[in-house]
Amino acid sequence: GGRPTISSEDGMYAMSIGLAFHEDIGGFMGMSPRRGESKGDYEGLTENARRLRIPISFRYKNWIANITPDFGSSNADGSATLYEANLNYAGFHNTVITAGYFQPRVTEEDSESSNEFEMMERPAITDIVRNIAAGDARMSVGALHYGKRWWIAGYLTGQSYGKRAAGYDSQTGGTFRVAGRPYVSKDIDVHVGVSAISAFKVAQATASDDRSATFAEQPEVDLTTTKLLSATVGNVGSIWSAGPELGFRWKRLVLKGEYYNIGVTRGNNSSGSAAEQGTVNFTGYYGAANYTIFGKPRSYNIKEGAFAAPGVDHAFDPAHGYWGALEVSARYSVTDLNSNLNSANAIRGGQQTVWSAGLNWYPNRHFRFMLDFNHFIVSDDNKASSGSTSLYDIMGRHGNSVAGRIQAAF
Amino acid sequence: GGRPTISSEDGMYAMSIGLAFHEDIGGFMGMSPRRGESKGDYEGLTENARRLRIPISFRYKNWIANITPDFGSSNADGSATLYEANLNYAGFHNTVITAGYFQPRVTEEDSESSNEFEMMERPAITDIVRNIAAGDARMSVGALHYGKRWWIAGYLTGQSYGKRAAGYDSQTGGTFRVAGRPYVSKDIDVHVGVSAISAFKVAQATASDDRSATFAEQPEVDLTTTKLLSATVGNVGSIWSAGPELGFRWKRLVLKGEYYNIGVTRGNNSSGSAAEQGTVNFTGYYGAANYTIFGKPRSYNIKEGAFAAPGVDHAFDPAHGYWGALEVSARYSVTDLNSNLNSANAIRGGQQTVWSAGLNWYPNRHFRFMLDFNHFIVSDDNKASSGSTSLYDIMGRHGNSVAGRIQAAF
Amino acid sequence: GGRPTISSEDGMYAMSIGLAFHEDIGGFMGMSPRRGESKGDYEGLTENARRLRIPISFRYKNWIANITPDFGSSNADGSATLYEANLNYAGFHNTVITAGYFQPRVTEEDSESSNEFEMMERPAITDIVRNIAAGDARMSVGALHYGKRWWIAGYLTGQSYGKRAAGYDSQTGGTFRVAGRPYVSKDIDVHVGVSAISAFKVAQATASDDRSATFAEQPEVDLTTTKLLSATVGNVGSIWSAGPELGFRWKRLVLKGEYYNIGVTRGNNSSGSAAEQGTVNFTGYYGAANYTIFGKPRSYNIKEGAFAAPGVDHAFDPAHGYWGALEVSARYSVTDLNSNLNSANAIRGGQQTVWSAGLNWYPNRHFRFMLDFNHFIVSDDNKASSGSTSLYDIMGRHGNSVAGRIQAAF
Repeated sequence: GGRPTISSEDGMYAMSIGLAFHEDIGGFMGMSPRRGESKGDYEGLTENARRLRIPISFRYKNWIANITPDFGSSNADGSATLYEANLNYAGFHNTVITAGYFQPRVTEEDSESSNEFEMMERPAITDIVRNIAAGDARMSVGALHYGKRWWIAGYLTGQSYGKRAAGYDSQTGGTFRVAGRPYVSKDIDVHVGVSAISAFKVAQATASDDRSATFAEQPEVDLTTTKLLSATVGNVGSIWSAGPELGFRWKRLVLKGEYYNIGVTRGNNSSGSAAEQGTVNFTGYYGAANYTIFGKPRSYNIKEGAFAAPGVDHAFDPAHGYWGALEVSARYSVTDLNSNLNSANAIRGGQQTVWSAGLNWYPNRHFRFMLDFNHFIVSDDNKASSGSTSLYDIMGRHGNSVAGRIQAAF
Repeated sequence: GGRPTISSEDGMYAMSIGLAFHEDIGGFMGMSPRRGESKGDYEGLTENARRLRIPISFRYKNWIANITPDFGSSNADGSATLYEANLNYAGFHNTVITAGYFQPRVTEEDSESSNEFEMMERPAITDIVRNIAAGDARMSVGALHYGKRWWIAGYLTGQSYGKRAAGYDSQTGGTFRVAGRPYVSKDIDVHVGVSAISAFKVAQATASDDRSATFAEQPEVDLTTTKLLSATVGNVGSIWSAGPELGFRWKRLVLKGEYYNIGVTRGNNSSGSAAEQGTVNFTGYYGAANYTIFGKPRSYNIKEGAFAAPGVDHAFDPAHGYWGALEVSARYSVTDLNSNLNSANAIRGGQQTVWSAGLNWYPNRHFRFMLDFNHFIVSDDNKASSGSTSLYDIMGRHGNSVAGRIQAAF
Repeated sequence: GGRPTISSEDGMYAMSIGLAFHEDIGGFMGMSPRRGESKGDYEGLTENARRLRIPISFRYKNWIANITPDFGSSNADGSATLYEANLNYAGFHNTVITAGYFQPRVTEEDSESSNEFEMMERPAITDIVRNIAAGDARMSVGALHYGKRWWIAGYLTGQSYGKRAAGYDSQTGGTFRVAGRPYVSKDIDVHVGVSAISAFKVAQATASDDRSATFAEQPEVDLTTTKLLSATVGNVGSIWSAGPELGFRWKRLVLKGEYYNIGVTRGNNSSGSAAEQGTVNFTGYYGAANYTIFGKPRSYNIKEGAFAAPGVDHAFDPAHGYWGALEVSARYSVTDLNSNLNSANAIRGGQQTVWSAGLNWYPNRHFRFMLDFNHFIVSDDNKASSGSTSLYDIMGRHGNSVAGRIQAAF
């Protein structure tokens, strides 16, 4: 597969070092704030170290230890952290049992490798759902199993790496995903699935017993630290989310769509005001279309239960007429963090719609260049003026972004 | 030994990459605070990235450079730091001369590799002693020499990695350890030794010339940031500690015990009040018993002058009747950070007693699972109510912990 | 070259792991502050993790991805960061096209590898010039080309790794360097060059539109966090700098000198007071002499357009009369951060003169020991007493430093 590996002659030992290198350059246009609003961190031209991961893997027989330092971060450009550090037992057929800091996969979009995404970022709803109890470097214990026609996995999860010190009581949660392929042919892949995730108990971050949870996202481009879409829910009991996955490939065309509902139940916190009662519901969905113009089209990866990137048979070599692979994508995505709007316990996180389009060029199987255009509309969040965050979005904001990515994957 | 290594054909060059992977899951029971006390960071179920080290070593002839990034931390789960970065000359027989960030070994317990500990954590007194002028990533210049029957090492030491910026004047100190084996046979190993450590001059952390030192420890389980045992001594001149090491193996049974006394002399700081005069004395000791139920029993490692973990001849394979190795341990440990209790210059750090028991299972030579139970009793520290720390321990605290570790070592 | 590398048999793939290990020990003498001044962070004996870099490189055909974690830092001893992370295309003859976090080289001194410096630190003016829009881990897009007799490179640059979050608007800038060798013979190398660098637009760090820039340096020894030489310029429009490079080798002797002028144009910021108008000019230069006492003398590296360290034909082996290589260096360096002294918009950053001398011993081609002595004189900066920084240097300061370095390079 191209990842540098050294092995012992008897095959008992193997060690490999890889790379997931994603650097973004781009900026925002048309982001002038309205009267009374702050502009926020929307620069015309800036950069971000999105992912700079060095996956290191040690295998002894069927036991595998993975550790992946990460020098990128989602949107604040640069700190050293960890993407994963886990132990695995792969002694059962098509099964991996895992314990440690891990990314348990939920939703079809999150099940794809970030090296193979259609667009630079996941839809906002996918990121919000996976961050409930999964995401990068989540302490997890569980297993996955896959076959030619189906994929299933479940994990019990705790806190993410480095987040424990903040808590008076750690989170416990879990994930579950099952996916299948009801119809497969040379030209057609049909994918159906369902993902579910829950924080059974949310971390307690302060000495007070009022446990809160924040749901927030950038406008599907991680070149800003300002999140227009943001809801904080207090007095949280548990959080759950579930929804269906649909995917369809016909020759060079891939269509995908997912819908998720999020529910937040409330705790029994005596300091909870009337505004902190009542179940909260958020929703989101997206639809995406992708077409491979030249090169090997997207295919289905049974180990991930998800679609994989186009392939390159002959590396870029114009003299011989080889141009690698090129694909074009479009996506429509909606995330609604408003709940109970007409009642005393309204949550006004705003609603974000993103139209996006992108081009990806693969000169060879290890390098990729991406170019994404996003147009986003965020409804006003009408939050109390006390929070400075709300100053970004009093009347509703919309804007555009253009971003490019250079990528290497080994 | 199983660490992935690449070498040049002429043997002049070698480079290796290893792994020390320790992740802990567990929590505390029966930790309800008394009236007026704070609970502290004692969670029922949480996790910790205890050690996530990637040792990288470059050799050219007899010269060796080691660098070991570490993504674990002792108790606050997750930051990237360094375990060591040093240069070594190994051209003399059974001798290693070292300069750079290093862990100079003092005490028998600290001389064991953390991959081979009997219990998940060192006894509290061992950690307190080694942190005086040794511990992880300590700037050191010195050497060790070992033979079949003895081991000796001495180092001059400075600050630990990353700690310099805090100082107006850096610490200087030193370590010394000598150990021998007066009797050795197939079934018996007798170990005697003595370790000494001193901070000749303590770092000056503030513009004021009042140099202080803090001695503090968790209850021998690193799933909390609250240290019930804690003494801060002001107007410090120098710190020294010394004590004997005893160890005994009879077939599958290993017995160990160490005792250390710590002395703190005072400086001549004009702002020192009456309470900041007079030499301070702390003490601590432990006794431990270990039995290897199946697998190769613990052995003596002459390169470390310390006992090593059980071995596994045949990796876990129940179909063929191979179960790896299993050992059971018990330990009694006392650390007394009270000094001069009946005088004006009393230091009331408290006294901590820990009873612990543990099981370690080695499915093969690279992986290990540990399970530890601790019961700890900390006497009241009766400190002035001004410090918020003291709120954890006004009347004395006791409690229990259960913790498990997953480990990989290459 | 001694860097551990694994390659595929067909030559299409290669991966290498290297090391740049620089650890410093030393301190300051004669640094007593005058009446009313603060001493500053000038310790008698301390240490610094100067560079602890692990360069990792992945090649597929002509495409190369580099990533280099760095656990050293310039003067505050210890944090994990990144030295570089970039993609390169090397398919054109003697040309490298680069995009990503990179160190674009400006000035002869900065073009040398830090493993091969004559003295432990660059001259102050070189560091100040390169930090305008280059330096470590600078987001860059550009290319270099070299031949036997000349070297040319240009880059567009942005922010440095990890610095984006601080900005409301990111910096954009660029670098250019051309160098040539008008005369070359066995005994003689003549080097001439010119370097230019500019920040077209300086980062906006606060919501206010007043963009400022700070120029500051240690006294050419990085064992202190106190910078006596320091100028902050407000209401900055753009910054540019340019200057000539001269170098000359005759047998075992290398002479070098560079001169740079820095100009800062002002912005049109309405809040700018009279003191924030008018172009600011700083200057600096250095002259250095180096002689290789034994071992292979310094040579010219055409890939860098700069001089390289002495070579070692036979590694240290006194029994056979091999002693490695030894060189001696001396340098005189002046940096003047005063501008418009007799006008209302005076900038008083001070003037720093450093006399330095050093010895470097290379026991073999991968290890080095350095010993540097510096005497430095900094004129009074006479800044307003409001800034605590100025308390270090009211009447002018002078002092001495002695510092040693242990180095490994693979």
